[in-house]
Amino acid sequence: MRALILGGDGYLGWPTALRFSGRGHDVAVVDNFARRRWVEEAGSTSLTPIRTLEERIQAWSEVAGKRIEQFVGDIAEGTFVADAVREFEPDAIIHYGEQPSAPWSMRSVDNAVTTQANNVIGSLKLLWAMRDHAPQAHLIKLGTMGEYGTPNIDIEEGFIEIEHKGRRDTLPFPKLPGSLYHLSKVHDSHNIHFACRVWGLRATDLNQGVVYGIETPETRLDERLVTRFDYDELFGTALNRFAVQAVIGHPLTVYGKGGQTRGFLNIVDTLQCVELTAANPAGAGEYRVFNQFTETFDVGGLAEKVRHAAGEFGIEVQVDHVDNPRLELEEHYYNPTHTKLLELGLQPTLLSETLIESMLQVIKRYEDRVLADVIAPVTQWRPEHVGEPAK
Amino acid sequence: MRALILGGDGYLGWPTALRFSGRGHDVAVVDNFARRRWVEEAGSTSLTPIRTLEERIQAWSEVAGKRIEQFVGDIAEGTFVADAVREFEPDAIIHYGEQPSAPWSMRSVDNAVTTQANNVIGSLKLLWAMRDHAPQAHLIKLGTMGEYGTPNIDIEEGFIEIEHKGRRDTLPFPKLPGSLYHLSKVHDSHNIHFACRVWGLRATDLNQGVVYGIETPETRLDERLVTRFDYDELFGTALNRFAVQAVIGHPLTVYGKGGQTRGFLNIVDTLQCVELTAANPAGAGEYRVFNQFTETFDVGGLAEKVRHAAGEFGIEVQVDHVDNPRLELEEHYYNPTHTKLLELGLQPTLLSETLIESMLQVIKRYEDRVLADVIAPVTQWRPEHVGEPAK
Repeated sequence: MRALILGGDGYLGWPTALRFSGRGHDVAVVDNFARRRWVEEAGSTSLTPIRTLEERIQAWSEVAGKRIEQFVGDIAEGTFVADAVREFEPDAIIHYGEQPSAPWSMRSVDNAVTTQANNVIGSLKLLWAMRDHAPQAHLIKLGTMGEYGTPNIDIEEGFIEIEHKGRRDTLPFPKLPGSLYHLSKVHDSHNIHFACRVWGLRATDLNQGVVYGIETPETRLDERLVTRFDYDELFGTALNRFAVQAVIGHPLTVYGKGGQTRGFLNIVDTLQCVELTAANPAGAGEYRVFNQFTETFDVGGLAEKVRHAAGEFGIEVQVDHVDNPRLELEEHYYNPTHTKLLELGLQPTLLSETLIESMLQVIKRYEDRVLADVIAPVTQWRPEHVGEPAK
Repeated sequence: MRALILGGDGYLGWPTALRFSGRGHDVAVVDNFARRRWVEEAGSTSLTPIRTLEERIQAWSEVAGKRIEQFVGDIAEGTFVADAVREFEPDAIIHYGEQPSAPWSMRSVDNAVTTQANNVIGSLKLLWAMRDHAPQAHLIKLGTMGEYGTPNIDIEEGFIEIEHKGRRDTLPFPKLPGSLYHLSKVHDSHNIHFACRVWGLRATDLNQGVVYGIETPETRLDERLVTRFDYDELFGTALNRFAVQAVIGHPLTVYGKGGQTRGFLNIVDTLQCVELTAANPAGAGEYRVFNQFTETFDVGGLAEKVRHAAGEFGIEVQVDHVDNPRLELEEHYYNPTHTKLLELGLQPTLLSETLIESMLQVIKRYEDRVLADVIAPVTQWRPEHVGEPAK
């Protein structure tokens, strides 16, 4: 298989490139290093000392004897992505190439615009490139469980059968995204669904939960192959951030009551899911949605797990509740379906105490790189000057 | 009331500006004349000889003794829209400022990108400007009935109560838009809903049907006040296009079987709806959706009506069925709810033979300006090189 991996220099993209290359597929990585820039502009940096893409590719070639190609550029600009698709002739396009942070998207009008322009226009250009140069390729697009929000009914995988006034139809599941970033993924989903309906493209939208973890079997082979790991308020996510806080002995900061429940999965399961999806492509004109997570946790419970594992590891930390910078329900119903990937053969790697301890161990190795002052939440969903809405 | 009208130089925007100004409101028009450029670049032009915005404003000041302000610029660029909102301090923002053509959006990747960037980013910048400078203003946003597509259940006004596995919630009505233009409006709707939820903004999304008609009481006062009227394949819509075809004795071109059913309304009812909406603003944090049309017709039936009215007017024309350039169901269920504007007091101006004849009369006046070769559909939703999807 020829796999083109957009965002292939990122947290998930790089390990995916290694996995597909390791399996014997022909892999090309597309990236413009925007993620590296955004993190650095925010005054943070990856916990792990990531190498340049050039060095990574060189290291992989030494370790595995395989060549990964690269296309460096911005998919939202000019004909760059169309040229890459035409030149590489992919069978599968795995698309992680988006601005991935909710708080970053809420920080300023410029960040909001960059997020939606980068994500929506980038993906739209990709769809048009597929229409013209690779109509049989399978698009595997990383979406997010956050597209659905927290409705008071069970969340289905992309579509729901609705009975209404005596008639029935199966329609896209309604979306209640919680940030301008999550909205960009909702917009992508609608555009991709349309491209499948009208141009006959094949696509699978992976509505992914919160990913945790730091290593995969391939990144462990050589330190130069390590993937990035963010823990700051903008690009760090709940479990990864808690684990770093634990290692530096900082109280684990739970936003608000901590009753917010979300789907989670281990980075090694992201790879498993993407592999299974690629091995079982969508049909021509088919738009599939898989909910990609293995278990749900509430944020408070998750912090407790980390606190307990840290204790076993020899670190005593507290759990602190801080003002929630986001606008979200802190107690809600949450029961999302997630059977489609299991039916394809996903073997979940569930979160165990041992697993958290092994994360703490890896983080400990890089403890001196931690910038403690980038962790506390600063970005407010509803800043003070906006105030409470007048009733 | 202080009303800021985005796209105030357009087909509906200009008559809206006149109506609000005539009623004694303070009106400012925002436009960058993109619509004029797009139509001209496509080799077409308004049937009516529209004046520059300067000349229109001057004429209105002579006719009505009222001053309309103008802000000339692109709402998607820089801080232009934020500056306009801060300076004008509107109570209501009536937003027509978008690329409005479905076929134009499907013509090329550049058109697709311009449509989504202009519409989605322009509206996002507007929302952020309201957040910072006019959080109490009421956004009246022109959406489209085309956001819903043609589901097999009754279409509700923006939200639907869903019972699913023994639980209930009222959620955004699922969307199945039929073009990249219609998708841009779906994206807008999601962004606006979010801005109301998170920043407490007030908004009404008017999901408008297909508008027909050429004159309003105010544009009739002086020929310099006439609004634009498009009949070409890109910017002309069904009834307006049929009326022009009838006047020049060209067969009325129905796309496909003509069973496509849509909601329609007269341009004078657009003004009535927008006035009623402005007079009854949404509450703080409230996102309302009104389905804005007065009656539904299938396209074949509509062509028959025009053929018959033209006969009475002394012109014999045929109805021709041409290959449908769009991908859409040509026979389908269609029963959209539209009671909210009626409840606010809308008095529908229904389509009568007399009304079509009066349109034909006005068009006759400009018959020598008709460019017959811009009417036939050229833009294909699925061009030949894309082919049928492999099964």
